[in-house]
Amino acid sequence: MVPPERPEESMASESEKRPISTIVILIAMQTEALPLVNKFQLKEDQDSVFPTEVPWVRYRGTYKDLNINIIWPGKDTALGVDSVGTVSASLVTYASIQALQPDLIINAGTAGGFKAKGAAISDIFLASEVAFHDRRIPIPILDLYGVGLRQAFSTPNLSKRLSLKVGKLSTGDSLDMSSQDEASIIANDATIKDMEGAAVAYVADLLKVPAIFVKAVTDIVDGDKPTAEEFLQNLAAVTVALEQAVTEVVDFINGKCLSEL
Amino acid sequence: MVPPERPEESMASESEKRPISTIVILIAMQTEALPLVNKFQLKEDQDSVFPTEVPWVRYRGTYKDLNINIIWPGKDTALGVDSVGTVSASLVTYASIQALQPDLIINAGTAGGFKAKGAAISDIFLASEVAFHDRRIPIPILDLYGVGLRQAFSTPNLSKRLSLKVGKLSTGDSLDMSSQDEASIIANDATIKDMEGAAVAYVADLLKVPAIFVKAVTDIVDGDKPTAEEFLQNLAAVTVALEQAVTEVVDFINGKCLSEL
Repeated sequence: MVPPERPEESMASESEKRPISTIVILIAMQTEALPLVNKFQLKEDQDSVFPTEVPWVRYRGTYKDLNINIIWPGKDTALGVDSVGTVSASLVTYASIQALQPDLIINAGTAGGFKAKGAAISDIFLASEVAFHDRRIPIPILDLYGVGLRQAFSTPNLSKRLSLKVGKLSTGDSLDMSSQDEASIIANDATIKDMEGAAVAYVADLLKVPAIFVKAVTDIVDGDKPTAEEFLQNLAAVTVALEQAVTEVVDFINGKCLSEL
Repeated sequence: MVPPERPEESMASESEKRPISTIVILIAMQTEALPLVNKFQLKEDQDSVFPTEVPWVRYRGTYKDLNINIIWPGKDTALGVDSVGTVSASLVTYASIQALQPDLIINAGTAGGFKAKGAAISDIFLASEVAFHDRRIPIPILDLYGVGLRQAFSTPNLSKRLSLKVGKLSTGDSLDMSSQDEASIIANDATIKDMEGAAVAYVADLLKVPAIFVKAVTDIVDGDKPTAEEFLQNLAAVTVALEQAVTEVVDFINGKCLSEL
């Protein structure tokens, strides 16, 4: 008997029609992750799905009808600081998708915001699209590859219901902003700036998993305070706002299909 | 019966005492990879060890006493250009180590060179150490994490026998060089500049696989020609020099233990 044809498109829409079951929340810093681990009463996975050598941490549990996994890249094995940035983010995104096959990825974290584009401290943004601002390759087409523009999974109902701000996210591996970064961020038309988003988007897109980006503003990039100082000053308070926002996002997602977001 | 204690260190030295068996050669561009694929008479792996969605290509075969795998991240699925840069490099390094458990990783490719530090077009360098020059995080310890300085696996006999130049390698995701990049490259004391090395080193170090870096100079960064133009002009010719050098490196490695390199 010949099995009925199931083109990829109809399979995708099948998965969009059943309630979301497993989500992976990728968070680069422990300070950002722990309030959510407590909120969802997750437990650190002792029998890791990751290789023994890596510092990546998975917190897992059931919250309402969802299997929730918070993945944190952990502390750098040599230096003891959070494994921030695009290399770690891309690795944990890849390994998490391979191990857990989530229906949806949420990259949550803090970000810098541009007041000229309407961002203020503690604002929560949902990214409409993400791109890199520090991969300049001035050769035709490779230039576009470097920018790596990708749409976030479209969630019109979610952003309406939770009154989240929506803006474009630009990603780079530096906390500061050089004039070249600034020019690229302007070209990306970005309202917020982080250190992981576009890498998560790249890997999620490669492996065909929908991804959304929830970012809380810790510092105003086009303000008068030095970024590192403002970031550290606001990190704890903004993390509370992030915890509340991600909880609302998860509550909204619970029981819904991808196509209802 | 209690098994005899085998501390990690003695296991590492055990593996250093048997001849190298499996090597992974990571190459970012097809133009750089194909001459070596032909030279070693490798075949493209049809039953991929990688997920079906990714464009990563494995060429495999036996050359002398070695299982050789050339891994190329492939063409970007949307844009059709080589998947260059640190994100792709870190992903293929991770997935290759997981799938193939190589004894040694060789990251081979082209690089920019600084004539002020003694580099000339078509020079072949073996990197002594690698670091990033575009991950500026001005917060104590996170700044060091950003730089991500790592030693290449030490190969004194290899560099002596093949008369390869030895120098420090600095990695960033841009083909051009901003003034901030330049300051970081000078701080890294680098003679050559590429777009993958430090990412490969990070992942190899994380997973405890020795890695070496063989880089051929396509353009002089501190010269008077525009990088992209000079790079494209010299790419084909320098790729021949790279093929010869990597072949000599592989011939030298054949039959030797890690500790003999």
